[in-house]
Amino acid sequence: MFVETVHPTSLQKPAKIGYLPLNSEKNQAGKHVLCEKPMATTVEECQRMMAEAESAKRKLMIAYRLHYEPMNLQVMQWCRDEKFGPVRSIASSNCQDVKAPNIRLSRDLGGGPLGDIGIYSLNATRYITGEEPIRATAIADAPNDDPRFAEVPANIGFTLEFPSGTIASCTCSFNGPEKRDFEVHCRDGVIAMDPAFSYRGLRLFTENTETRTQHKLAAINQFAAEMDHFALCIKNDTEPRTPGQEGLLDMRAMVAINRSVELGRTVEIAVQ
Amino acid sequence: MFVETVHPTSLQKPAKIGYLPLNSEKNQAGKHVLCEKPMATTVEECQRMMAEAESAKRKLMIAYRLHYEPMNLQVMQWCRDEKFGPVRSIASSNCQDVKAPNIRLSRDLGGGPLGDIGIYSLNATRYITGEEPIRATAIADAPNDDPRFAEVPANIGFTLEFPSGTIASCTCSFNGPEKRDFEVHCRDGVIAMDPAFSYRGLRLFTENTETRTQHKLAAINQFAAEMDHFALCIKNDTEPRTPGQEGLLDMRAMVAINRSVELGRTVEIAVQ
Repeated sequence: MFVETVHPTSLQKPAKIGYLPLNSEKNQAGKHVLCEKPMATTVEECQRMMAEAESAKRKLMIAYRLHYEPMNLQVMQWCRDEKFGPVRSIASSNCQDVKAPNIRLSRDLGGGPLGDIGIYSLNATRYITGEEPIRATAIADAPNDDPRFAEVPANIGFTLEFPSGTIASCTCSFNGPEKRDFEVHCRDGVIAMDPAFSYRGLRLFTENTETRTQHKLAAINQFAAEMDHFALCIKNDTEPRTPGQEGLLDMRAMVAINRSVELGRTVEIAVQ
Repeated sequence: MFVETVHPTSLQKPAKIGYLPLNSEKNQAGKHVLCEKPMATTVEECQRMMAEAESAKRKLMIAYRLHYEPMNLQVMQWCRDEKFGPVRSIASSNCQDVKAPNIRLSRDLGGGPLGDIGIYSLNATRYITGEEPIRATAIADAPNDDPRFAEVPANIGFTLEFPSGTIASCTCSFNGPEKRDFEVHCRDGVIAMDPAFSYRGLRLFTENTETRTQHKLAAINQFAAEMDHFALCIKNDTEPRTPGQEGLLDMRAMVAINRSVELGRTVEIAVQ
């Protein structure tokens, strides 16, 4: 459903990822904003966007489409209910092969595999655990012999620890095959999606020692579901399920992951 | 085939993991030795065992049974041939639930998930890439409310970088469900085993964007294959495919992973 009378529209996000003016002066059309992820490139930019949207009394929603997708929602619910016991560890990969030229390969434009695709694994670890990571460590690699990776890494492996003790190990790659999956190691069984993050063809499995079961839920148009939600938030004046804060929390973890790569050490993530 | 006339026998490995005397004085029976993994608890112990076996002119083989298993061998061969292009990243998990009391939960006896099950993922990253890792970073967690983990961690997530730029992200858990898998992200496709490390029921898959294919190879008795190889090495006086050096190289990486946990930083692994 798209509520035509409400006119929820998104400002065109500039090719460069970064701060998007949402104050009433710059956002002259006074639009509500549906912003792609990553929301910006620093935590401060995220905070400024959130403050401006609030002061202009406009909605700010970050386009985390998997928060509106039935199988990922089912995983969130199972983990919240501890249907298979508490979550112990998570493994997730998001890989693709990026052809040059591409804004994703530009450091100045906010490119690189972490913000573009690793963010899916990161966001999944957060919605699977329902927690915020407290520590991050990571290693990145940029091959010398591939001009695509003069400015951004090709591969990043990152590990996150959550307050409950859950450890998540993730890999993202800009020179790999298409692979977008996660597996959740719960005490009493495994929940897996493969693919987990694609636009279509998602598959949901649960496993125990004896059996692997595929759970077939009706596929939906993820973008329509996302925009329907945004439209309803505007119509009913309610907070989006993926507000600016969701983008900010991913950004905070990504800053820690990047700092870990840069400093060669485990980085603590301050609890807000 | 077991060559009875050769009498290849293994010394009973003590419950405590550590140095096993292979010099002719202590190894009074003068046995050839098939030693379980992890080979010991320090690189120095591994070196001492290798030197003693050499000086006593006895075979020393480390029991890496998957080096004798057809599907894992197929993966090694495909990766060596770059059948799906070069390896970009690897994700691997090895999880199980360990019941107390168990020597695996004792620090003094050399327990913990890394040496017991994480070593399978580690060894896989080495036989998949055919390289030795150059850097390691890791995070470990031991839940306060579970007495099983008073001495050893429950979960370790570790990331390794290889000279070619391959990044491997692995997780191992002593309080999780049974899950023993890897996926290899090659440039042109994915090679996956799930399970990869079990005694039986192994499954091998390859994937590209369109298709996922299961490759059914005849299952074997992994222990028989391993011991047949050991027997032939003794009979023919040849070097085992998994000699002491194989155990030492895993040990070197595990020492780096443990140091990364301890120091909270990425640890360089010296090339030998």
